[in-house]
Amino acid sequence: MDIKSLCNKQTLGMKSSMIRELVEMTKGVPGLISFAGGFPSPKSFPGKDLADIFYQTIVEEGEDALQYGSSGGDRELKEAIVRFEDFSFEQDEIHISNGATNGIYYALRTFIEPGDCIVSESPSFLGSLVCFEAIGAEILPVSMDGEGINTDELEEKINQARKQGKRIKMIYTIPDFQNPSGITMSRKRREELIRVAIENNIIILEDDPYSRLRYTGENIESLGSISRKIFADKEAVITVRSFSKLLGPGLRIAYVIAGKDIIAYMNSWSQKINVTTERIAQKAVTRYLNSNLLPAHIEKIVDLYKPLRDKMISMLYSCMPENISWTKPDGGMFIWIDLPEGENSDLLFEKALEKKVAYIPGSKFYPTGHERYNGLRLNFSYPTAVQIEVGIHRLAEVFTV
Amino acid sequence: MDIKSLCNKQTLGMKSSMIRELVEMTKGVPGLISFAGGFPSPKSFPGKDLADIFYQTIVEEGEDALQYGSSGGDRELKEAIVRFEDFSFEQDEIHISNGATNGIYYALRTFIEPGDCIVSESPSFLGSLVCFEAIGAEILPVSMDGEGINTDELEEKINQARKQGKRIKMIYTIPDFQNPSGITMSRKRREELIRVAIENNIIILEDDPYSRLRYTGENIESLGSISRKIFADKEAVITVRSFSKLLGPGLRIAYVIAGKDIIAYMNSWSQKINVTTERIAQKAVTRYLNSNLLPAHIEKIVDLYKPLRDKMISMLYSCMPENISWTKPDGGMFIWIDLPEGENSDLLFEKALEKKVAYIPGSKFYPTGHERYNGLRLNFSYPTAVQIEVGIHRLAEVFTV
Repeated sequence: MDIKSLCNKQTLGMKSSMIRELVEMTKGVPGLISFAGGFPSPKSFPGKDLADIFYQTIVEEGEDALQYGSSGGDRELKEAIVRFEDFSFEQDEIHISNGATNGIYYALRTFIEPGDCIVSESPSFLGSLVCFEAIGAEILPVSMDGEGINTDELEEKINQARKQGKRIKMIYTIPDFQNPSGITMSRKRREELIRVAIENNIIILEDDPYSRLRYTGENIESLGSISRKIFADKEAVITVRSFSKLLGPGLRIAYVIAGKDIIAYMNSWSQKINVTTERIAQKAVTRYLNSNLLPAHIEKIVDLYKPLRDKMISMLYSCMPENISWTKPDGGMFIWIDLPEGENSDLLFEKALEKKVAYIPGSKFYPTGHERYNGLRLNFSYPTAVQIEVGIHRLAEVFTV
Repeated sequence: MDIKSLCNKQTLGMKSSMIRELVEMTKGVPGLISFAGGFPSPKSFPGKDLADIFYQTIVEEGEDALQYGSSGGDRELKEAIVRFEDFSFEQDEIHISNGATNGIYYALRTFIEPGDCIVSESPSFLGSLVCFEAIGAEILPVSMDGEGINTDELEEKINQARKQGKRIKMIYTIPDFQNPSGITMSRKRREELIRVAIENNIIILEDDPYSRLRYTGENIESLGSISRKIFADKEAVITVRSFSKLLGPGLRIAYVIAGKDIIAYMNSWSQKINVTTERIAQKAVTRYLNSNLLPAHIEKIVDLYKPLRDKMISMLYSCMPENISWTKPDGGMFIWIDLPEGENSDLLFEKALEKKVAYIPGSKFYPTGHERYNGLRLNFSYPTAVQIEVGIHRLAEVFTV
């Protein structure tokens, strides 16, 4: 059989996530301290509670939990999330997905066809960028400042692209503790972004895995909430939230809040792509939420991650040469480092491995053809405080010429 | 926002599974006996064993089970399946998917683009047909006889379609106890089908949810196995198998066996669509397989379903008028009824509801534009023996004019 002749263009053009390959490279190095991964700490998983809840779920509701379920998700879980969430929406405005990436894929599957444009913050989450490219979307990168995506540049890019006859359908953003930059979009910028999106009839895809993991500063309302409350628009924003960073990504339970027509389309794609999200995990998360265990558990995670963030930032201040700067995220899992213009963190990666420390070179977080090379991402949720202390020392040696 | 103007063509053209709507219709009818569903019996779920195993999994391996995993599936589960399977293949020739539909979608996502043709047995599983149509594939229906898909007609249709410049990429088949017909493809026909596929460079997608549920007759080797053993071809057949009908569809654990390049593409799509299949369920199924509980459990399911099949067939013999015929499946969950030519089971459906009995009209199992109306599908895995006795009586009254 000639398999390649049968594959579609998108499959043949697909790139793998280079981060996985980088992470593989780090595995053979004894004594290496890695800030490269994007994993939550296993210490953040409520294993004992979940073991009990999974057991009870199967014993008490096994006949239902092991059966087929709704493509949109279990009603009881939707109800529990409606109670848990910080803004209000209806049952038919929520979809339960197999993790956040799956919710994002259903949104893409609903709107995007090859050649369509998606605006993205630049840099942004590589997993989403490779998916956009895989399905044949063109990515329009827009830069950020300390308040998030530059909305003036956004309007310019939209006008320019439309003059070239391009179809812009979506703006992808991670407003809170962005991956990889750690930047949080200001309240004012959020309103500005929604105004631009509504004026131009472009959907906002709000990817929010981290907003519950805030260590300092005041919580800022989500784009989905602002759009509903201030702009009286239920359709402009698709908000994707997840239990991956709260209970564990192995559970694959996330949810999408959007206008009800959009949710209906996503349910319909879900029926064809996954049929239903794993039922036992859905029921277990329902029980976990209804037992009201989550608020205290989130406090525990904050108590776990905040000292790690603080440690990393204080180590950066005490070790790094003066020509290097970094973001000070109020939450999440990542800090972004800027080396002087002209430096190349891809080239420095091997030197770092020699010093037994690893990071992700910033170039990996830009759409193809738009790479910048002097940034890099550090993760602080997975290493220990001691590893952060030693690892940042090593990294400073790499960057001190 | 004008949402419809942003949706892609495929989303706007998507049809929902009409079976769900039919099943909804049956819900308000008190005392109704339904042969309409396609659900396994909850009595077939090993709830107690799974409750214990899920508990142990989280207690003993929670830190790993709750973490991100490989997009291709857990290594340990792949190893357990390699040991369990009845033909041999390598670790890099298997992918763990979120249920069989998900494995089928990854195969479609790898090969098909809008306008491509997929050959399908006719009638076939509605869930797959609506997915083929949703992604913009054209379906070429090929009829079946008692030995399965008509390979002469298949070759004719392939030649004819190729003369019209059509791209045929895939042949979709359910060789064992086919849904909805109950037909099993003979060994000879399987070899013939593989020969035609290889000669024409067309991939076979073998959907096999039921082959382990055999009540009478001898097991027939899978297309995947025959292709490897007789044709020395590892790439011609993609075999999709599932634990849904053995342990419960709520678990969402299925697997795909295919050539390693195909599996690599599917892993790459999985990374973008689901990231990973639910980890706890993967580990629980691994433990279940490694405890060697499955063979005895399959015997229990056979002991549960065989009497139900036998009951339904004996009731059909004793109640149905002479001008009606039916298939006698050796396994699976469905029996197909043929009414005389000119009868319309869609029109009779309301009359059946009045008599408090339900089925799925056969027309729902044909691709759009190719419907035939005188067939219908009965499920025997979900109702009780008493319900079958009473329900077939009622159905005979509906069909006796």
